[in-house]
Amino acid sequence: MKTVLLTGFEPFGDESINPSWEVVSRLEGVTDAEECIVCVQLPCVFGESLQVLLAAIARYSPTLVIAVGQAGGRTDISLERIAINIDDARIPDNQGYQPIDKPVVENGPAAWFSTLPIKAIVNALQQEGIPASVSQTAGTYVCNHVMYGLLHALGDKPEVKAGFMHIPYLPQQAAKHPGSASMAAETVKQGLEIAIRTALRVEFDEQITGGTMH
Amino acid sequence: MKTVLLTGFEPFGDESINPSWEVVSRLEGVTDAEECIVCVQLPCVFGESLQVLLAAIARYSPTLVIAVGQAGGRTDISLERIAINIDDARIPDNQGYQPIDKPVVENGPAAWFSTLPIKAIVNALQQEGIPASVSQTAGTYVCNHVMYGLLHALGDKPEVKAGFMHIPYLPQQAAKHPGSASMAAETVKQGLEIAIRTALRVEFDEQITGGTMH
Amino acid sequence: MKTVLLTGFEPFGDESINPSWEVVSRLEGVTDAEECIVCVQLPCVFGESLQVLLAAIARYSPTLVIAVGQAGGRTDISLERIAINIDDARIPDNQGYQPIDKPVVENGPAAWFSTLPIKAIVNALQQEGIPASVSQTAGTYVCNHVMYGLLHALGDKPEVKAGFMHIPYLPQQAAKHPGSASMAAETVKQGLEIAIRTALRVEFDEQITGGTMH
Amino acid sequence: MKTVLLTGFEPFGDESINPSWEVVSRLEGVTDAEECIVCVQLPCVFGESLQVLLAAIARYSPTLVIAVGQAGGRTDISLERIAINIDDARIPDNQGYQPIDKPVVENGPAAWFSTLPIKAIVNALQQEGIPASVSQTAGTYVCNHVMYGLLHALGDKPEVKAGFMHIPYLPQQAAKHPGSASMAAETVKQGLEIAIRTALRVEFDEQITGGTMH
Repeated sequence: MKTVLLTGFEPFGDESINPSWEVVSRLEGVTDAEECIVCVQLPCVFGESLQVLLAAIARYSPTLVIAVGQAGGRTDISLERIAINIDDARIPDNQGYQPIDKPVVENGPAAWFSTLPIKAIVNALQQEGIPASVSQTAGTYVCNHVMYGLLHALGDKPEVKAGFMHIPYLPQQAAKHPGSASMAAETVKQGLEIAIRTALRVEFDEQITGGTMH
Repeated sequence: MKTVLLTGFEPFGDESINPSWEVVSRLEGVTDAEECIVCVQLPCVFGESLQVLLAAIARYSPTLVIAVGQAGGRTDISLERIAINIDDARIPDNQGYQPIDKPVVENGPAAWFSTLPIKAIVNALQQEGIPASVSQTAGTYVCNHVMYGLLHALGDKPEVKAGFMHIPYLPQQAAKHPGSASMAAETVKQGLEIAIRTALRVEFDEQITGGTMH
Repeated sequence: MKTVLLTGFEPFGDESINPSWEVVSRLEGVTDAEECIVCVQLPCVFGESLQVLLAAIARYSPTLVIAVGQAGGRTDISLERIAINIDDARIPDNQGYQPIDKPVVENGPAAWFSTLPIKAIVNALQQEGIPASVSQTAGTYVCNHVMYGLLHALGDKPEVKAGFMHIPYLPQQAAKHPGSASMAAETVKQGLEIAIRTALRVEFDEQITGGTMH
Repeated sequence: MKTVLLTGFEPFGDESINPSWEVVSRLEGVTDAEECIVCVQLPCVFGESLQVLLAAIARYSPTLVIAVGQAGGRTDISLERIAINIDDARIPDNQGYQPIDKPVVENGPAAWFSTLPIKAIVNALQQEGIPASVSQTAGTYVCNHVMYGLLHALGDKPEVKAGFMHIPYLPQQAAKHPGSASMAAETVKQGLEIAIRTALRVEFDEQITGGTMH
């Protein structure tokens, strides 16, 4: 049986919840004939978040890893294309650490591309009526840090697919951030299930444009 | 028993559904000890939309009227403060009519304020975790047309509360409009129920800021 | 000789300058064969701003009045279509007064339409390469207050054209508000000159759509 | 004497001008005691744009290269942090070529970081009152293609500083794109001069946050 590892974050900044964990944790233990899902919460802390994630990979030997994070203000589910070797934090992490222009991995490559079939996932989400897009940047905070570290660690294991998905605020969060978009937990959960199914099913990504002009 | 009249619109432009009718129609016939809800679909047509609405008011003698419309691209449920005496259409209506700078009502006043307790409704929505705001403009298309005509017709019946609520795209619509925000039908339905309860309960609106700088 | 009265505001909020006065004051005393321009700075204060404006109208008997105000975050020069009879302040004015849902003029009409040829002005601006649009709301702060009071005072003098123009931040302001759009003072000044010329020249406004869907 | 090489693009898409060339070309031949500026226009074509750029580098042996491109819709001057090894075009280039998920350089590294002191430049621009920010993505069109190819070619010449700057529409362009921000050519030109001065003067970049949360 294949194992799918999902991660969500603990809350950070002024938030009391993190939509990534709210949604990911609903899929804990979901099992069908071929796969079972394991969920792990990551601290919103540079370094420690990666240690927890890599320990989970060592423990569960997943064939698919999708890390999920909050992107407050974004309107849709976005599949990150690439993670870059930079930590540049606008606000301190949950341990008070605020790196500026430090590498995630000393002497690591400048970036790692997601190994998820991101175009196929975005297409499947849109076909099923769930707003989705490819994102060209995962930012420079803990989300990018985790995505970079995840892909760097799996660099020599091409048989494991891995990547990062950003999700909007939940409605109850957006209610406190006037003007911000949101997405219901139920919608995000459906989206995550579609992403998992697509990632497990698709061997080669689809040739569909998902780029941006700038 | 009091009657609450809700209206939603038929689809317009390139859309095959209209979130306002998708949500409003779910409340058809909902009845409790004191109120029953009646729902009417309005055509997205200048003039005819108002005829259908005013006929429904004449027939049902509601004590509360909330007209609901689609605001593609908005992020939250917005309670309109005011309707203005102008039809200025960016695209033709569903009958092909595209008025520019015509009055909704010849020689009518320049504008009518909503008689809903809009601040109390926005506050109640936010308290219950539903993104909401006051809007200072309902635009100049059929939504504003209906709101103006509704309030103009009720001008001499202050015992009937009436106003307009704009709602975002549904997720399946936003999936076709990259970058657009959306709100799940279930969330909007909860919001509409809260708005009705608040409008029936509140006698004087709350003194909370809901303005904009410009 | 005809007199054109322009007004700009003093700075408010966290700003040390106000782009409206920065630009308006550059046109002080500009005179050609038929018109001369008079400029007055208004305090960013409910009530007092209107007293200063109405005193200037009494003194100069202008045939055209364009009040200009800052709209931090907007991208273009926007010609306001309508002012509404509401003061609803998100922040206190420069005297510390913060009205919520008070009328500008007790028992005044709900709104007054601009008597400027706003469509013709927007069209002329765009033709000359200056970003411009019609705006359906001047907000509920001192700008709307001044526009409403101005049009209310001129209600019985249809021979005087009057209205309100909102302008973006200057670049030096936007440099402190990451992500905000701006417009160079020189561009805004050209726009204001075009607006004056157009307002003096045009007798009936153009039939061009300038509305919004919501 | 040191040579500074600036590049701008020819127009693309529906535009008849490209702000990058409009501004860059104004600095052609500007010379002071220590530096002279050389300007080259690049075709908006995958592949060919890079050939022209690399030929110019071979010819002029610059110590500083700043490639400038149009970012229609952005509000400020943005200094790109990184270029990624992907061509993914939403629209065909000026030769009708529309690559999807092709590498810029076969077997090249996933990304290259700008070697400009981007934080110092952004800081200097803001100090001088010009809206500016660090950008975490140059997109996946010809701009990113040129930036990647430029940095890849200079990979073994750390003595040459190079990078990419995105600029907004000019006002005359935004006048045709309602709602889009713009920046006057004069403001962008000042910004480019500040960027050049800063890049020539600064040895190590400043430790200022310029990251994003997502």
